[in-house]
Amino acid sequence: MRITIIGSGNVATHMAAALKNAGHRIVQVYSRQIQHAAMLAYHVGAEATDDLEAILPDTDIFIISVKDDAIAGVVEVLTRHQKLIVHTSGATSLNTIRAFTDDAGVLYPLQTFSKSKEVDFFTVPLCVEGADSTITAQLKELAATISNNVYVVSSADRKILHLAAVFVCNFPNYLYGIAQQLLAEHNMGFDMLKPLIMETAQKVQEQLPDKVQTGPAVRNDRVTMDAHLQLLNNQLQLQEIYTLLSQGIIKNNIEPHGDK
Amino acid sequence: MRITIIGSGNVATHMAAALKNAGHRIVQVYSRQIQHAAMLAYHVGAEATDDLEAILPDTDIFIISVKDDAIAGVVEVLTRHQKLIVHTSGATSLNTIRAFTDDAGVLYPLQTFSKSKEVDFFTVPLCVEGADSTITAQLKELAATISNNVYVVSSADRKILHLAAVFVCNFPNYLYGIAQQLLAEHNMGFDMLKPLIMETAQKVQEQLPDKVQTGPAVRNDRVTMDAHLQLLNNQLQLQEIYTLLSQGIIKNNIEPHGDK
Repeated sequence: MRITIIGSGNVATHMAAALKNAGHRIVQVYSRQIQHAAMLAYHVGAEATDDLEAILPDTDIFIISVKDDAIAGVVEVLTRHQKLIVHTSGATSLNTIRAFTDDAGVLYPLQTFSKSKEVDFFTVPLCVEGADSTITAQLKELAATISNNVYVVSSADRKILHLAAVFVCNFPNYLYGIAQQLLAEHNMGFDMLKPLIMETAQKVQEQLPDKVQTGPAVRNDRVTMDAHLQLLNNQLQLQEIYTLLSQGIIKNNIEPHGDK
Repeated sequence: MRITIIGSGNVATHMAAALKNAGHRIVQVYSRQIQHAAMLAYHVGAEATDDLEAILPDTDIFIISVKDDAIAGVVEVLTRHQKLIVHTSGATSLNTIRAFTDDAGVLYPLQTFSKSKEVDFFTVPLCVEGADSTITAQLKELAATISNNVYVVSSADRKILHLAAVFVCNFPNYLYGIAQQLLAEHNMGFDMLKPLIMETAQKVQEQLPDKVQTGPAVRNDRVTMDAHLQLLNNQLQLQEIYTLLSQGIIKNNIEPHGDK
């Protein structure tokens, strides 16, 4: 397919590269900052522009990967070309595009991307949604050229996925940072924790999290939990986090939710 | 070395197997439940007992891997044999053994173990501490036969590590469980989140957590955070967790801690 990429952030960069590798032609890359557009465009053999008015109509699909609150404004300009328009946002409804055109869809990669780190895009779950079944089928086909994990997901379910992603990615990463800081305060290196972080993630690839919960809270080991709170003596916010998450684990253990 | 294992839990099981594989002789395995002792003993070619009084004196080291509050009671019985006694606990001071004997040490594996899951013990960080430099050297040597990551760590620092482990293992696993439950409530499978969980852990193997923080909180994207809280409408505890962790990420971003 001929593809136009609107945006030059982490998602745009990784998705454009995957599409290029899959044999699609990236026609043009747009970014408000021409240097960013130029860098990505160079990488995927496309033209660069920082002018929405200069976007070429000779393409099959516009993939919009910009900040959520900027999507509608871009769609408004692109509809004139009467081509399929999709966004890549987890938190944004399909209706944000559909308010302007029925040639609308979503291509949401459920992964965390950094420009500095390679990702095997074929492992990335891609959630597609189309304004009608033809578009959905078309997006499934496109998605399957770059990912082995393609799901059809409604806007409502995609929002749940996006929320769940915060719980399994953004929040754990924040907790990794707390631990790194605790160790640094005692002149210990973060390296010591890396095998534990990997193993914790690895475990739930095979078993449900509830089945492999370990630590003082799941044992309701008050002595250890009190000792931990003592160690966090001067850090009220960390004590609060420790207490709230421990209470959650204890409660889970006493009244486990549904059948699993 | 000739080694006696006191305990038959996850740590005892994995450490005994690693020691056996490294060519040490496991003399005896003790557990309060003879079936548990027998199962591990069979696995590592040792004798089994459920009687502390029946523990054989012909050994070089007693490795105690029982619940923290049971350690002292076991030490009291074992001192009569006048052999080196170590425990494997992160949260327990060396002094818990030293109160009874100076032939004391610690061998703490900084990893999460389940009996059902194999672990490459050579990747497990092993924290050693001896009551004197001779014992420390001896434990370093022993540890190096089963792990490529041996650290000498004081009791005070080990407690910090144990606390940090809660933040990078027990708490993230609890958050994985919350996400799994959210998806289940909307008839979506946990499989969709697994690549994201792995990538999040993978990222901090190479970069510090603060450098790779993503999500609505680090962007201070109030619209998305409010939408997420709305989705957690009926789940007060999850709203509380969401708010507290998001506030932490926002605060981190505004006033980053020390040089990193």
